[in-house]
Amino acid sequence: MSDESPGALSINTATTRRQWGVVEAAENYARLGVTGIAPWRDQIAECGLASAIRAIRDNGLRVTGLCRGGMFPQPDRTSFAANLDDNRRAIAEAHELSSDCLVLVCGGLPEGSRDIEGARAMVAEAIALLLPEAQAAGVRLAIEPLHPMYAADRNCINTLGQALTLCEKLAPEDPNGWLGVALDVYHVWWDPALEDMLNRLDPVRLHAFHICDWRRTTRDLLCDRAMMGDGVIDIERIARNVGALGFEGLPEVEIFSNDWWAVDPCDVVATCLERSLAVRRILDCTQV
Amino acid sequence: MSDESPGALSINTATTRRQWGVVEAAENYARLGVTGIAPWRDQIAECGLASAIRAIRDNGLRVTGLCRGGMFPQPDRTSFAANLDDNRRAIAEAHELSSDCLVLVCGGLPEGSRDIEGARAMVAEAIALLLPEAQAAGVRLAIEPLHPMYAADRNCINTLGQALTLCEKLAPEDPNGWLGVALDVYHVWWDPALEDMLNRLDPVRLHAFHICDWRRTTRDLLCDRAMMGDGVIDIERIARNVGALGFEGLPEVEIFSNDWWAVDPCDVVATCLERSLAVRRILDCTQV
Repeated sequence: MSDESPGALSINTATTRRQWGVVEAAENYARLGVTGIAPWRDQIAECGLASAIRAIRDNGLRVTGLCRGGMFPQPDRTSFAANLDDNRRAIAEAHELSSDCLVLVCGGLPEGSRDIEGARAMVAEAIALLLPEAQAAGVRLAIEPLHPMYAADRNCINTLGQALTLCEKLAPEDPNGWLGVALDVYHVWWDPALEDMLNRLDPVRLHAFHICDWRRTTRDLLCDRAMMGDGVIDIERIARNVGALGFEGLPEVEIFSNDWWAVDPCDVVATCLERSLAVRRILDCTQV
Repeated sequence: MSDESPGALSINTATTRRQWGVVEAAENYARLGVTGIAPWRDQIAECGLASAIRAIRDNGLRVTGLCRGGMFPQPDRTSFAANLDDNRRAIAEAHELSSDCLVLVCGGLPEGSRDIEGARAMVAEAIALLLPEAQAAGVRLAIEPLHPMYAADRNCINTLGQALTLCEKLAPEDPNGWLGVALDVYHVWWDPALEDMLNRLDPVRLHAFHICDWRRTTRDLLCDRAMMGDGVIDIERIARNVGALGFEGLPEVEIFSNDWWAVDPCDVVATCLERSLAVRRILDCTQV
């Protein structure tokens, strides 16, 4: 493909969440040349699902993921069941949105718990329960391993290897990839096993590819992600591995950043488009 | 052993670094019932090595580790060599202090680099060069895997498995454990492979066991460690695994915390002693 026509791009609405709601984001992303969107459920709740769907469809955007289901480990069975119900609503929303997948941020330790293996067992139990329902709704589940610094409070699934083990255990025969993973360079770049795990990954299970960057000196655990190129991640190397898997989704920019939330969102989007050029070319080339 | 006589304890001087220099720390740790100390080189430089050694010896403290050597990945060969020379001085200091080990915080990415595997190769190269010199000086090297959130700026060795692979590659025949590891619960508690890796660990390579806790909601990447019991780590479970290896060192409290640095250091030490009781009993019991 030519330099003039790089591959397409999705933006996760968290990237502009302080500036735009989902409807404004959909309109502006499309106007500025973005072809996909990944909305968050709390932002959808603000405008209503119908408005979100209309704005996304009217602007011709592909939904690369719905954020998020998960948070499975709970302090008691009642909360566990209530959270499953919330995940069922998330599956229904993902279906309505024709989303490529429902992203699962699986949850950390229940308040007061020190039993991380117990939490991991609750994650497996919950996904096993939800998987047939997601499949019936035509929704692919994407386990997103989160950086180990979130193990306590957000997600006890912290490596791609762990996520793959879950997939292989809960859905050993899964030619359509109803259970798969979302790969975010921010969470996995440091992992010495990353390349081996990408080789182990059945391509049909790769549902999302998130890009951003890791600041060499990170100032905040949650809201200090960097724009591609401003950090230390060799994003292009990971993109080549992802491309080699035949990934057919769109790369998706997801940046939680106090810095970027303070910038004119049109400039944020323009910068996302510019800084993702190399990755988009890699994915386009390897897909052809 | 009885409840009245729990096992011994070491404190890392980083725990009281804002309140006490090494000499004051040695005097006060001993006076309050602590039996070991792990000093930092920058703190030793402030009082001079001879004063530090005298204070530590006069107070009958065991040196459970010298912090720290490492920082091996460098932007050019000149810096690489200069840093090796600094590590040679650290080996000499560890020898003078009769330290159980020299702790290696291996270093992150050189400024401007995105090549984490290249950084890891520089770590291996440096340790291979230093190991015979350390052995000649009677100093055991302890690779300390650091939490993946430090991969960019402090240490590209981020799991116990990675550290063991380095040991097994660089010192395959090492019955005296000249090359080993320092295990800090803060860095490894999240790792789903931790127990398997502790089973893989040759006991002779376990040179240090650091304890503290991980706050469920951590507010700062560097200076928000918790006192044992105030966080989510199942420290006693890890201590049982460490005890099962026949660990003969002292558990060592190492807490970087803006909160605890603002507390009367005598209270910090008293709290360390109290909150480490369970771990000390576990290590004493399993050693007998």
